[in-house]
Amino acid sequence: MENLRSGYLFPEISKREFDHRQKHPQEKLIRLGIGDTTEPIPDIITSAMAEYALALSTVGGYKGYGAEQGNKELRVAIAEKLYRNMGIKGNEVFVSDGAQCDISRLQMLFGSDVTVAVQDPSFPAYIDSSVIFGRGGKFEEETGQYGNITYMKCCPENNFFPNLSTRNTPKTDVIFFCSPNNPTGNAASYHQLKRLVEFAKSNGSIIIYDSSYAAFISDHSPRSIYEIPGAKQVAIEISSFSKCAGFTGVRLGWTIVPEELRYSNGFPVIKDFDRIMCTCFNGASSISQAGGLACLSEEGYKAMIAVVDYYKENAKIIAETFTSLGLKVYGGENAPYIWVHFPGQTSWDVFTEILSKTHIMTIPGTGFGPAGQEYIRFSAFGHRETVLEASRRLRNLYK
Amino acid sequence: MENLRSGYLFPEISKREFDHRQKHPQEKLIRLGIGDTTEPIPDIITSAMAEYALALSTVGGYKGYGAEQGNKELRVAIAEKLYRNMGIKGNEVFVSDGAQCDISRLQMLFGSDVTVAVQDPSFPAYIDSSVIFGRGGKFEEETGQYGNITYMKCCPENNFFPNLSTRNTPKTDVIFFCSPNNPTGNAASYHQLKRLVEFAKSNGSIIIYDSSYAAFISDHSPRSIYEIPGAKQVAIEISSFSKCAGFTGVRLGWTIVPEELRYSNGFPVIKDFDRIMCTCFNGASSISQAGGLACLSEEGYKAMIAVVDYYKENAKIIAETFTSLGLKVYGGENAPYIWVHFPGQTSWDVFTEILSKTHIMTIPGTGFGPAGQEYIRFSAFGHRETVLEASRRLRNLYK
Repeated sequence: MENLRSGYLFPEISKREFDHRQKHPQEKLIRLGIGDTTEPIPDIITSAMAEYALALSTVGGYKGYGAEQGNKELRVAIAEKLYRNMGIKGNEVFVSDGAQCDISRLQMLFGSDVTVAVQDPSFPAYIDSSVIFGRGGKFEEETGQYGNITYMKCCPENNFFPNLSTRNTPKTDVIFFCSPNNPTGNAASYHQLKRLVEFAKSNGSIIIYDSSYAAFISDHSPRSIYEIPGAKQVAIEISSFSKCAGFTGVRLGWTIVPEELRYSNGFPVIKDFDRIMCTCFNGASSISQAGGLACLSEEGYKAMIAVVDYYKENAKIIAETFTSLGLKVYGGENAPYIWVHFPGQTSWDVFTEILSKTHIMTIPGTGFGPAGQEYIRFSAFGHRETVLEASRRLRNLYK
Repeated sequence: MENLRSGYLFPEISKREFDHRQKHPQEKLIRLGIGDTTEPIPDIITSAMAEYALALSTVGGYKGYGAEQGNKELRVAIAEKLYRNMGIKGNEVFVSDGAQCDISRLQMLFGSDVTVAVQDPSFPAYIDSSVIFGRGGKFEEETGQYGNITYMKCCPENNFFPNLSTRNTPKTDVIFFCSPNNPTGNAASYHQLKRLVEFAKSNGSIIIYDSSYAAFISDHSPRSIYEIPGAKQVAIEISSFSKCAGFTGVRLGWTIVPEELRYSNGFPVIKDFDRIMCTCFNGASSISQAGGLACLSEEGYKAMIAVVDYYKENAKIIAETFTSLGLKVYGGENAPYIWVHFPGQTSWDVFTEILSKTHIMTIPGTGFGPAGQEYIRFSAFGHRETVLEASRRLRNLYK
């Protein structure tokens, strides 16, 4: 723990928000920072949870412990609805209380001597949990990086895909890869992911692929790493109902560990992960799982995607705001995040300027790694009128 | 992971149950094994969860991420309702998805070189998570123990309290202690816990005190380690709504980390645990938390304790069954577990005999550690008529 710097990004951002509110109690603060869902959950989904909860008061409907790996019906529904034609089976799906929690449980699979690579920029929990598990060295203020961790730079110059030549990317045991990416909003292409899988195969690496934003993909980018042939031998996939179903507070996610995935000694990784789920976890809330099942029903899925489309329209509004101001804008089409370039400025300076002058919360790019310098992440979660108001304020600031 | 033996106790027991059902599909199996709640949750509690879930479909009632440490109102309610007069504050309460999950998160606080002590017998997750985190050596078939772990024998001969003389109990960094105990059902006395706290103080140890069964205490035994003066400087307490509120499937627990608790270098443990909750966890389900809050309302608490009393009556029936058969019986008065001595027999032999001849699932004592040899744990969770039927079958077997 000692190597970990004191501030985790998101609580730090919350603190800044709190301080700003204290200073400007009369201003209407707009939150485009932390990626927190804002729209009501479709009725068909909450009704399923309410019904399940009420049934727990009846002799016939009461249920105690569920399987640690998740309700079988939900595991099969995830496999069949979201991984159709990829050959993922229900027993390879482990239902959880969210992707962030699964990241830490996956860390338990490996000894403290494994090496880790992450995209730069990336969601901070990959690095922070790696440091907690003893895989990161000291933090170097100068580079903005922890020792012993490989930062794979992903920026417009390389189409947001790391240079996988041996010189640039050393052999690493575990590669965290998020697509559509948080924070850049970029979805990796089929050919990029094919190269990633090949790299992992030739290096004996395990990819931990985070597809939490897959429901936001608009084009033909892969929605899962398992669309790539051979990925089952090298990749674990984590994902979540948080952003697609508004389950950030309800807590429900899943991890796929294919039977084909083996350690270098041939032992199946799925057996160890199953043991970790049984020892260090005790199943996701049965009520949340009833909600997850409703999300995957025909009607529930349609309603859920309608909310995703609403957020995508928000993303379009934010992206167009900056495009019209002549700034370079990335993401937004396949993800609820818009990644805006402010050349020549530090991201904390831009963050502070936007907050103090427009009362809009954002996230400074360097919060996601040193390659986020000069960038700001805008979240597309929010009510439409709030997003439109944010757009007006930003146009006024930069006109 | 390699040091961990392949079978986690409870899934192994489930497998035996499955095999038995296949062989005897016509017999009515009675489950007094895994401590899984069976009675409906009081309506006032499930209604609160259903209402919360339905409100998530409304603009006014929708909420996204909650605080990683839990809803403030619930943290304060736990502190005030369950730790009154002990000086525990709401900010020292961390709401979670259950005690078993918290055990693993607490393991993240410490480096892999810390030494661990557990009661023998004890709930397997203390040892198994310690082994996953690299703190256990190889498993020795002969002793039934892992290397590097101190097994503190707790048996009738020492009033279920370990010999804390330096010769018997070496200095250890972390001591797991569960009271009322799973599996023996024994609640430690005030004077025993005072000795434990003094031992931890003089050795610089941290106690991880598991009070998950505190609601079952009938006598004056402490319901929390914090009833002991000075405990806040040496003890973390984990607890749960699982067994008292029937939340085994709903998933809700908590951990108390007092501000006064420091590492040997003076750094507050609460700061590290807060960081772990923010990085490796993302809050318990908001719906479950609404249920927890209802459990602590005046009416909800009364209803919840009525169910606990029902299980305690079950425990009495099971204990009397064996007492009348002339067997030595422990536990049951302050816990939902009855610990029965079958002198001269191995616990797996007794388990197998009971299962094959009476179709009753139990748990063999050695599943909880080598000191559980010759013992069987009976759970008091079950419908009354099932428990009475079990009593009849057992009386027939041993008459």
